[in-house]
Amino acid sequence: MKLLEDKIRELGQVRPGDVLKVDCFLNHQIDVALLDEIGAEFHRIFKDENINKILTIEASGIAIACMTARHFEVPVVFAKKAQSKNIDGDVFTSKVHSYTYGRDYDITLAKKFLSPADRVLIVDDFLANGKAMRGLLDVCQQAGATVAGIGICIEKGFQPGGADLRKAGYKLASLAIVDSMENGVLQFRPQD
Amino acid sequence: MKLLEDKIRELGQVRPGDVLKVDCFLNHQIDVALLDEIGAEFHRIFKDENINKILTIEASGIAIACMTARHFEVPVVFAKKAQSKNIDGDVFTSKVHSYTYGRDYDITLAKKFLSPADRVLIVDDFLANGKAMRGLLDVCQQAGATVAGIGICIEKGFQPGGADLRKAGYKLASLAIVDSMENGVLQFRPQD
Repeated sequence: MKLLEDKIRELGQVRPGDVLKVDCFLNHQIDVALLDEIGAEFHRIFKDENINKILTIEASGIAIACMTARHFEVPVVFAKKAQSKNIDGDVFTSKVHSYTYGRDYDITLAKKFLSPADRVLIVDDFLANGKAMRGLLDVCQQAGATVAGIGICIEKGFQPGGADLRKAGYKLASLAIVDSMENGVLQFRPQD
Repeated sequence: MKLLEDKIRELGQVRPGDVLKVDCFLNHQIDVALLDEIGAEFHRIFKDENINKILTIEASGIAIACMTARHFEVPVVFAKKAQSKNIDGDVFTSKVHSYTYGRDYDITLAKKFLSPADRVLIVDDFLANGKAMRGLLDVCQQAGATVAGIGICIEKGFQPGGADLRKAGYKLASLAIVDSMENGVLQFRPQD
């Protein structure tokens, strides 16, 4: 998606340790007009998949999920990273390792929000090693829900998450795939 | 806002300890069409305040902030509850006590996203004791930003957060004010 690649080139910052900071528009400050375009693009790609729910994980995924759900006219459900008193015990859980935070955490999702009747589009801001995504896929499997598609804003193509998901047969759309950030120079994978 | 009150009556669940669960449509599963109406209502109320940024706190606030920002055509910025490796050191911080989670936590917001030039609308899903709101107001004060308004979906009118903010002179709009939940019966405060 040229609009997103241009925004990453303009405002993204490459940091040591393969960190790509996009906090100016994607995951701290949020460019809602850009996210609306991203949502429209996910709809264009997945509109024939009979999707009835957008699934994501807090926190950055929520903005993308909402601006995508608007185009599908379906609800969002987001997995939580911490157990709250307000969540009932009847939850799906899965363990996730975060490289960003350097620790394991549980994600939880109330069982009443995901069932075998659901055809889910999973969305998130980043796909790198794919650990958070595996947690979401695990939750869908526990629920018996169908993963009809996966929509990612920025995939780090030099890390294994995307390749693993494609090999497993998922319909994965990454709107921008960064194949290299060496010496601070962003190289995007050519896509149709 | 009658639409929101009706939704709370239909799907909200009163639990012991003055807990009002609205996870079916507001803070776990998200009814995006409802949030779009909520955003439109905040715009109707605050459209003459020259707001140039919507501020909230992760996680549930992000959905409301995005669906509100759409109507103002301004960016969202959200305060984070945990320090991430991806955030630079140059942040505003404030300490917040969470009754829901039963602990204190720091909120952080990168300094580059809030300045004396900003006229901010703060939005959140709930206002009860107002502890999270005080953290956001503290961050705005540190930044020298003007709080042009506060938009809340559900205020617990029997807890002091709303009254404190009104007494302090803030322009506060709570779209539904629950004055009592005794015996599981919701009583909403009449509003224009």
